[in-house]
Amino acid sequence: MKRRKTKQIKLGELKIGGDAPIVVQSMTKVHPEDIEGTLFQIDEAYKAGCEAIRIAVPDRKAVEALKEIKARSPIPIIADLHFSPKLAMMVFDTAVEGIRLNPGTMPKEALKEILSAAREKKVTVRIGVNSGSLPQEYHRFEKLSEALVACALDALELGESVGLYEMKFSLKASDVVETLEANRRFATLTDYPIHLGLTEAGPLFSGTVKSAVTLGVLLSEGIGDTIRVSLTGPPVWEVRVAYKILSALGLRKRGVDIISCPTCGRCKVDLIPIVTELEKKLEHITEPLTVAVMGCVVNGPTEARHADVGIAAGKKSGVLFRKGRIIDKLPPERWIDRLLEEINALLKASDKYNESSEVL
Amino acid sequence: MKRRKTKQIKLGELKIGGDAPIVVQSMTKVHPEDIEGTLFQIDEAYKAGCEAIRIAVPDRKAVEALKEIKARSPIPIIADLHFSPKLAMMVFDTAVEGIRLNPGTMPKEALKEILSAAREKKVTVRIGVNSGSLPQEYHRFEKLSEALVACALDALELGESVGLYEMKFSLKASDVVETLEANRRFATLTDYPIHLGLTEAGPLFSGTVKSAVTLGVLLSEGIGDTIRVSLTGPPVWEVRVAYKILSALGLRKRGVDIISCPTCGRCKVDLIPIVTELEKKLEHITEPLTVAVMGCVVNGPTEARHADVGIAAGKKSGVLFRKGRIIDKLPPERWIDRLLEEINALLKASDKYNESSEVL
Repeated sequence: MKRRKTKQIKLGELKIGGDAPIVVQSMTKVHPEDIEGTLFQIDEAYKAGCEAIRIAVPDRKAVEALKEIKARSPIPIIADLHFSPKLAMMVFDTAVEGIRLNPGTMPKEALKEILSAAREKKVTVRIGVNSGSLPQEYHRFEKLSEALVACALDALELGESVGLYEMKFSLKASDVVETLEANRRFATLTDYPIHLGLTEAGPLFSGTVKSAVTLGVLLSEGIGDTIRVSLTGPPVWEVRVAYKILSALGLRKRGVDIISCPTCGRCKVDLIPIVTELEKKLEHITEPLTVAVMGCVVNGPTEARHADVGIAAGKKSGVLFRKGRIIDKLPPERWIDRLLEEINALLKASDKYNESSEVL
Repeated sequence: MKRRKTKQIKLGELKIGGDAPIVVQSMTKVHPEDIEGTLFQIDEAYKAGCEAIRIAVPDRKAVEALKEIKARSPIPIIADLHFSPKLAMMVFDTAVEGIRLNPGTMPKEALKEILSAAREKKVTVRIGVNSGSLPQEYHRFEKLSEALVACALDALELGESVGLYEMKFSLKASDVVETLEANRRFATLTDYPIHLGLTEAGPLFSGTVKSAVTLGVLLSEGIGDTIRVSLTGPPVWEVRVAYKILSALGLRKRGVDIISCPTCGRCKVDLIPIVTELEKKLEHITEPLTVAVMGCVVNGPTEARHADVGIAAGKKSGVLFRKGRIIDKLPPERWIDRLLEEINALLKASDKYNESSEVL
């Protein structure tokens, strides 16, 4: 996988693009006036690995709240601005690291002024073009992907015309294929970092599949410097799915990778509830670990040897592996507890050990 | 998206490869001796769109059971054979349409005999190479992907040497990147249909993400003629995820696509439980439909207009759309019921209407 070459920009101290790791973002889902609720969502997402958080700023109260949220947030904040140039200008006084502007929801003249102010205040800008809010003038394009690219390029030019270069771009549609095409096209035309996402991806299950396909395809083509998985669910879910996608492609490793066989007529134990329970108990771990749960003699023992720790299930008892070595033999009812014990031991032995990772 | 050119083979009456739609498969997860349990899983998967089902055949009892299962199955059956050449030869008397052989679990001489018998009996063969059970002789390769390809090519040659051409191939690893590389490489070297899958993908959540990334990337490159999503969960889940992946890429449309915004500080209603409930209530529908649930004035109304039916949420009431036309205005507590009513009406108006689709 060869990553597309881009310039590197900064969001506060966070590097985006160039040789920086692909950054994981999310967005809070309560009105910022609910300062504690917002900070709770930020904190949960942060613990799951979120590195920058977007917050909607729909009114003056939101701007006021942003000051305190900014002061207490462990990660850079991006203010999401629509419709009101006045509010946008007010946000520069909150010290947030970034703003997101949508050319479809801000008059062009105002957009130029805000971009100019961003340059002056050293605030990083995401130009976020969205299929749901494309300005009328881009409806002339036959293909949605072309309209998205044209709109993004015009905003890029507008930014550069006022001397702004700390920009990243997103081109989102709710249609996967249009999103793929728009991003591929934009990627060949500029060297700005790209923020990937699928808009209105939907609820947890289908939103996860659609996002994994879209982001997976683009990342495998080397496109994407920061990502957000949009789900109709809490921000922490978005972050978990984002890392699962990045881990799958070997781009960033975080959290537990459970390798478990799908089970079949050869399997002598009911693996589904065991694996389901295990997945739940391990979801908060940030340390990269591979845990295998295999129910079958065909692939079981060989696969389990690759894992940090694993169970290969036989008829009445399972064999516990740790880094390739058999260390125990136990009946199914003890598998989960012993696996958790072993995982805890591995976590404690690691340099990155912290108490919140413990599983018991 | 340009699909790789392959020869077309048949599994019973089902066409695979060439210009045939990408076929969705799954695998049963109980011992076939449990005939009713096996048929229940087949039936559930079939209703979700499963077009061929694999069944493990670990012993003689399984072979016996296969006869009755075959007689009652609405879709072609593929017997999964390992270790015992004798059992494999017995399976030819059950009239199943296909067999799956793994060069890593069958001695080479026996493999040749079985392939020859398959040709004679007109039984379609999948050669399924798996990272967990690669024969010793392929351990010499530095890269796992190269070892998988070499093993598959040797089996291909063995098949052709006895005049067998009704073959498809799978190259599965539990590592996404290795699986991508193996399939890409194999795809350039032969014109046989490819069966895609990621082995030991894991439990529902992470297995879904890993499978969506792997299959999404390969399908977007035109590779893959039949797919199976392996999950540690019931076959029907595997089929649902498979269709979500195919739908995302526009390769096959089936079931409801829910477009819903991730919600943010602008959203005045709690969309998450509404969308979650809706997703559950609509998961059994096979008719392709787009349903929008939008909570925000920024993208809401515009996006909802594209959907077959949708709600755009305002402060105290939502606007109900049907194919772009506003047809009602209602408070949040009535949204789900009215959406379901509208969806039922759409289903009834369609040619493919059947009672099992109804949502009320």
